[in-house]
Amino acid sequence: MEHKLINSRDNALLARAGKVVPNGVWGHMATRAIGPGYPQFFAKSDGCRVWDVDGNEYIDFMCAWGPNILGYKQADVDRAAIDQIAIGDIGNGPTEVMVELAETLVDTIDYADWALFQKNGTDATTTCVSVARAATGKRKILVARGAYHGAVPWCSPSLIGVTAEDRAHLIQFDYNDVASLDEAVVQAGDDLAAIMMTAYRHDVNRDQEMPDEAFLRHARAICDRMQAALILDDVRAGFRLDLRGSWARYGVKPDLGAYSKSIANGWPLGAVAGSRSMLEGASRIFVTGSFWYGSAAMAALKPMEILRPTAALAHTEARGRRFREGLAEIATRHGFELSQTGPVQMPMVRFVDDQDLAIANIFCAAALRHGIYLHPRHNMFLCAAHQPADIDRALEAADAAMRDTARTAK
Amino acid sequence: MEHKLINSRDNALLARAGKVVPNGVWGHMATRAIGPGYPQFFAKSDGCRVWDVDGNEYIDFMCAWGPNILGYKQADVDRAAIDQIAIGDIGNGPTEVMVELAETLVDTIDYADWALFQKNGTDATTTCVSVARAATGKRKILVARGAYHGAVPWCSPSLIGVTAEDRAHLIQFDYNDVASLDEAVVQAGDDLAAIMMTAYRHDVNRDQEMPDEAFLRHARAICDRMQAALILDDVRAGFRLDLRGSWARYGVKPDLGAYSKSIANGWPLGAVAGSRSMLEGASRIFVTGSFWYGSAAMAALKPMEILRPTAALAHTEARGRRFREGLAEIATRHGFELSQTGPVQMPMVRFVDDQDLAIANIFCAAALRHGIYLHPRHNMFLCAAHQPADIDRALEAADAAMRDTARTAK
Repeated sequence: MEHKLINSRDNALLARAGKVVPNGVWGHMATRAIGPGYPQFFAKSDGCRVWDVDGNEYIDFMCAWGPNILGYKQADVDRAAIDQIAIGDIGNGPTEVMVELAETLVDTIDYADWALFQKNGTDATTTCVSVARAATGKRKILVARGAYHGAVPWCSPSLIGVTAEDRAHLIQFDYNDVASLDEAVVQAGDDLAAIMMTAYRHDVNRDQEMPDEAFLRHARAICDRMQAALILDDVRAGFRLDLRGSWARYGVKPDLGAYSKSIANGWPLGAVAGSRSMLEGASRIFVTGSFWYGSAAMAALKPMEILRPTAALAHTEARGRRFREGLAEIATRHGFELSQTGPVQMPMVRFVDDQDLAIANIFCAAALRHGIYLHPRHNMFLCAAHQPADIDRALEAADAAMRDTARTAK
Repeated sequence: MEHKLINSRDNALLARAGKVVPNGVWGHMATRAIGPGYPQFFAKSDGCRVWDVDGNEYIDFMCAWGPNILGYKQADVDRAAIDQIAIGDIGNGPTEVMVELAETLVDTIDYADWALFQKNGTDATTTCVSVARAATGKRKILVARGAYHGAVPWCSPSLIGVTAEDRAHLIQFDYNDVASLDEAVVQAGDDLAAIMMTAYRHDVNRDQEMPDEAFLRHARAICDRMQAALILDDVRAGFRLDLRGSWARYGVKPDLGAYSKSIANGWPLGAVAGSRSMLEGASRIFVTGSFWYGSAAMAALKPMEILRPTAALAHTEARGRRFREGLAEIATRHGFELSQTGPVQMPMVRFVDDQDLAIANIFCAAALRHGIYLHPRHNMFLCAAHQPADIDRALEAADAAMRDTARTAK
């Protein structure tokens, strides 16, 4: 059953928004930057589903771009937060909930001896940089070319409104490329404060790439030798691949890690986790925010508590695999070749030889009409609320969308 | 009736926190940076009161350092937000609530033609800087010496973990000093992007100072002449002095304004408001965050809607005046001279000739024992929940504390 196209209510709201908000909508959720056919405004969300303002329902594979890990409106999460609101979200200092949350993170994340809390993923990555500089007394930060670490001047993917000095101490290397990392290290000389990397390579508009274990070990060895900090930007992948931190499976421990997105299933929270060696640096910097001790978002921290004793992460992985295999079979049947990369819980789906995303855009627009919300060039996300029946339904929709695409694109 | 001293439970929690959080507690709410005798951990908050984890109750004059403007746990605010959570806080884009919120800000703030939303006050000030640079194509930002604009490297009050380049394009001037501003403008030359100022001078550890109207007009004229942006950092004062923006009473319109703290009575939200002249710049920058479209905090935006049709701001001001006059009378009676400056709703209370805050620290510790929570060297805040009886009760406590102080300090 096909949806009607995105229509009157969405367009009317966007026009209304355009009068009071630059471009109507900004940032990563602005659909003009995603592709044609996307609804811009949503009416509600529940489990693994979202509804646009025109009443169309979608099985959602973006999960609010990561925060939704347990399912939208997961009852236990929201109940804990709302109970805390009845006690008092804010005051003149933290509540016991902050201590419990820090203890939970230290117990969960394999390299963590301490934690600090914020509100944004960018707060967390920026704090990591400051801690690394304070701890080492050095300045250069090595980052992988094309990686996303946030949206403030030092790391924004856009250079508009940014000065050269904002990035004066950044040096780029290529993810998983030892020679290129070595070159960047030489360039940093005795001023190397940190190497910062995302959990795996999940840059927009290209195949995803898991970290090469030897590359991670090499980066770890450099940081040990140079007394620099190895920073894991786990904002996007954190808790979805491995509750212990996304590099635990490789046995490589960073000194600092940045978390946000799924840490409280959508309640606004960021966190920095750090090792003992970074404690003194972390103790000396001044970072803060008006709402950073807000206890509701801290009390909402249930994902890792809910996930740890269960097989939910494994189930999510199994559903991701089923979705990937199903998509591959469907594509082949309709005469397309897909490149599906990265973790199956965070799928990247690209059409091979797809000049300017022409096919991906047609397919994603068709998928929307058939009731699934995909992304043509950014990694997607599965959550624990995706049940096998949802995957089956999504594959039916993908099949119909692929049929439409074959008809249109060929 | 005196409280017992801060005791076992607070100390135990701080020791526990110290094992998993750098210094146990960080940022502006770390009591080791405030003074002796402060409870660090809170159990609950309600109206104009907070309770520490040892069960001591305080009439609160910090209001969570600003966010609490209507009273902690104001029922209408929290109900609106929680109702939105039942619909869905997050999704793959904004809800209609975002449009309504932007419309409300544009209707309320006198210079605002548009708005953008964030999570922290620092997000808002940083976004203002990026918008100003994008809009003007210039780089220099003039800021007042000693002003607080946030806690990231470009503006943090601490230089630890910060590089010189983070502040390469900042030029300082003295608030309310025309000659010093002119000098900074000359220094910026044809690279002047913006002059950024707090609503009034509310620097820590010194008398507050209202803006001189001629100074504001001078800054406005410079920005007009040089095609630079005048930025009002209204994060701390916004909505407490004047719903239209804190400079409305002076008839001086900034081009950009930063808001946070009290905008949603404690729900985490930041906002940039801007004039038509900044729209194009704001349309081109890339700023975003995972939770910036969270609709619960947006739905919670009731302070200005609740305050506008009422005399609540005037009442708060009247209670602030009563508190100030009462404190002055009490101090005189006990042989102390106070310097009380700035808006009465955001009082700064200092003892004259108080070397190293020796007297202020004794007084504030005594005030805590008598059940009021004050600050020895930062501006305080009143909220709409402070009733005349609360002020009377607070003044009784202040009287007792001043008596203790006279006994100890003299």
